[in-house]
Amino acid sequence: MARRTVVRVLCLGHRAVNLLYGNSRHPLHTSVSSASSHPNGGFKPEKVAVVTKTTRYEFEQQRYRYAGLSEEDLKQLLAMKGSSYSGLLERHNIHTNNVEHIVQSLRKEGIDVRVVKRGEYDEEVVRWADTVISAGGDGTMLLVASKVLSKDKPVVGVNTDPERSEGHLCLPVRYTRAFPEALDKLCRGEFRWLWRQRIRLQLEGTGINPTPVDLHEQQLSLEQHSQAHRITTTDSQRRSGVLHQSYSKPSLLPIRSLNEIFIGESLSSRASYYEMSVDDGPWEKQKSSGLSICTGTGSKAWSYNINKLDEQSVEELLKIGKSQTGLEIPLNQEFIEKVTQEYNESLVFSPDDSRLFYSIREPIVNRVFSSSRQRGFASKVCVRSRCWDACMVVDGGTSFEFNDGAIATISMSADDQLRTVLLEN
Amino acid sequence: MARRTVVRVLCLGHRAVNLLYGNSRHPLHTSVSSASSHPNGGFKPEKVAVVTKTTRYEFEQQRYRYAGLSEEDLKQLLAMKGSSYSGLLERHNIHTNNVEHIVQSLRKEGIDVRVVKRGEYDEEVVRWADTVISAGGDGTMLLVASKVLSKDKPVVGVNTDPERSEGHLCLPVRYTRAFPEALDKLCRGEFRWLWRQRIRLQLEGTGINPTPVDLHEQQLSLEQHSQAHRITTTDSQRRSGVLHQSYSKPSLLPIRSLNEIFIGESLSSRASYYEMSVDDGPWEKQKSSGLSICTGTGSKAWSYNINKLDEQSVEELLKIGKSQTGLEIPLNQEFIEKVTQEYNESLVFSPDDSRLFYSIREPIVNRVFSSSRQRGFASKVCVRSRCWDACMVVDGGTSFEFNDGAIATISMSADDQLRTVLLEN
Repeated sequence: MARRTVVRVLCLGHRAVNLLYGNSRHPLHTSVSSASSHPNGGFKPEKVAVVTKTTRYEFEQQRYRYAGLSEEDLKQLLAMKGSSYSGLLERHNIHTNNVEHIVQSLRKEGIDVRVVKRGEYDEEVVRWADTVISAGGDGTMLLVASKVLSKDKPVVGVNTDPERSEGHLCLPVRYTRAFPEALDKLCRGEFRWLWRQRIRLQLEGTGINPTPVDLHEQQLSLEQHSQAHRITTTDSQRRSGVLHQSYSKPSLLPIRSLNEIFIGESLSSRASYYEMSVDDGPWEKQKSSGLSICTGTGSKAWSYNINKLDEQSVEELLKIGKSQTGLEIPLNQEFIEKVTQEYNESLVFSPDDSRLFYSIREPIVNRVFSSSRQRGFASKVCVRSRCWDACMVVDGGTSFEFNDGAIATISMSADDQLRTVLLEN
Repeated sequence: MARRTVVRVLCLGHRAVNLLYGNSRHPLHTSVSSASSHPNGGFKPEKVAVVTKTTRYEFEQQRYRYAGLSEEDLKQLLAMKGSSYSGLLERHNIHTNNVEHIVQSLRKEGIDVRVVKRGEYDEEVVRWADTVISAGGDGTMLLVASKVLSKDKPVVGVNTDPERSEGHLCLPVRYTRAFPEALDKLCRGEFRWLWRQRIRLQLEGTGINPTPVDLHEQQLSLEQHSQAHRITTTDSQRRSGVLHQSYSKPSLLPIRSLNEIFIGESLSSRASYYEMSVDDGPWEKQKSSGLSICTGTGSKAWSYNINKLDEQSVEELLKIGKSQTGLEIPLNQEFIEKVTQEYNESLVFSPDDSRLFYSIREPIVNRVFSSSRQRGFASKVCVRSRCWDACMVVDGGTSFEFNDGAIATISMSADDQLRTVLLEN
């Protein structure tokens, strides 16, 4: 995956340091309670890594590479499945043109640019760059951010296919084809820093493997997913490992989560068994279809989809409330929409909020399993796996084995904040 | 898995036929609108297949068989994971003792008994038996029922570990250690037939594989799950298959679903893309974490867990309703419990109801994807997969590949009803 190149150390000129960091040699600090802050001056990076997504077109090509398909074969195959070859090629070209636009804009300003595919993106690239740009959609932005541990290194997302990607974590879409404008505003300080709190993960116990698997890059089947998790263990190691399974000491993983951690059985149809302790409270056994722990940023993502209510449910509930009380509770469409919207909006909280939000998804409550709070804020959540073949998925893109006996401590630290840029629309 | 033995055809004596079927040679008919009905006489089977579950103890033994572990090794290994060897052995013994009790009770009545492990249970066993008994929990009952296609062949579930298994689909727990009483009541006609409507599945298109995978028996990891799906395809077949992917004609699968069909990506962290048409309505694109289609029996199972609301959500909604209307909506614990309970109870419907209930789980609504009804009754649901590595899971236990281009037609027929027994508690 990563090519090891010699790290080139460039000395930032004094002027550049001032521009990045203000008039002292210390990074710009913002108090953890403000979502964004004005920079003390302009921002002009000197070494920018541009990390690009893999387009669906590239992916389909790679997927059938072993069969030695020609472009014409690929076209027919996609057609048979009801997909459009020309459509995929079009999106691919739009993306690559937009990447080219970004790269040219940066080079015109004399900035040193490295273009890196997401599969090649690693800690060395992060170390080299003073700024990292994600060129893709939200998925790419999540992957890019996960490897930037320092809160001093800005990460900027550019949506390279605004018609297809939502781009919630990216700059406003107008800058995709007008990137020099964005650079200009950054240079003149006409922007705000936006701080996003993130999650850190500590793993210990049995049944863990600190080697992550990148779910997007490899678009793994289940088969490959498990193979990838076990890739460092030989058969004989595994055999002896069975008898001599070591209890691993706590180790902090070298990634940070911007949206959420999801813990659960890898196989979607299998129930997940685990134990959970919130803020050092008592351990409780749980059986559910998984556990989600999100940040403020992530409160609009998967966690939102798990917890949101639809108008159908709200209408039914209000009907029951009405019939049980005899009160004149409105049941018209407008009111139902209003209540639904207010409920769903209450699920969203600020990216700079230093709290986690946990959700037990589809809890199975019976004689054995707990029925206490299924959702709430916390500073720390500890989870012990009782799963058969489970994973801890970071931002829907990186997966760690998390089987029977593994213990995860999930928390936040102000040191882990992601520095991103807020530009006016 | 299945051992092929010569099918022994026994002629049922005239008396036995009368007892099974009443005074005519036609099976007892019940109108599809009544949940249960009185038999026209006693019920005395002559050939009973007893299908037994695999206990956790047996499973752990098999799991580590390759490592050549002694019992002492297994004990230590389980202890390290926090599991109890002696506990598992105890449950195993309770189960096997209860199976022995059932078998002895049957043989005392001169009934011909075949004891079959779930992994060996197949159509040949079903053909041989005039009645099938499931000896295990609900999972075993679901597997046993799935292979009985005829509505004339009774299936009876006995819960062999009442302290650990819920046994919703099994006889009342008192009969587990008093099975002769159950046989006696059956013989004297002191019971009712309970008819459970079931789902039938038709598959066609590309990306299908009609060979199912038994999820429970094999406790598959993701790796094995996909390998099992592909087990009949060689590499060169796959390579040429890529170019010559055939469009399979519609074929009705040889199983029936008692609880639900779940369709979705096998990997729990991946979103599912598909298109759906309800009762021959327009096709709509969906993106969600999966689709569940259940029977009345299944409305208390997974579908229930997907759709139920918890008191926390209900309380929050009522608060919003109260603040928006100014009405005196109660917010005390008792009222919240009442409303929650009534809502959740409305999700449950009768096992003999001939309708399906579909639920789009965690729909992702945006510019591209539909936001119409997420839940409802239907007679027929058609689904076309746009998934990468998805499956159609029957009753949480049997899995069929269901990838990009596959089309499933999900419906019900009165011919597919399962004949089960209702004994007083």
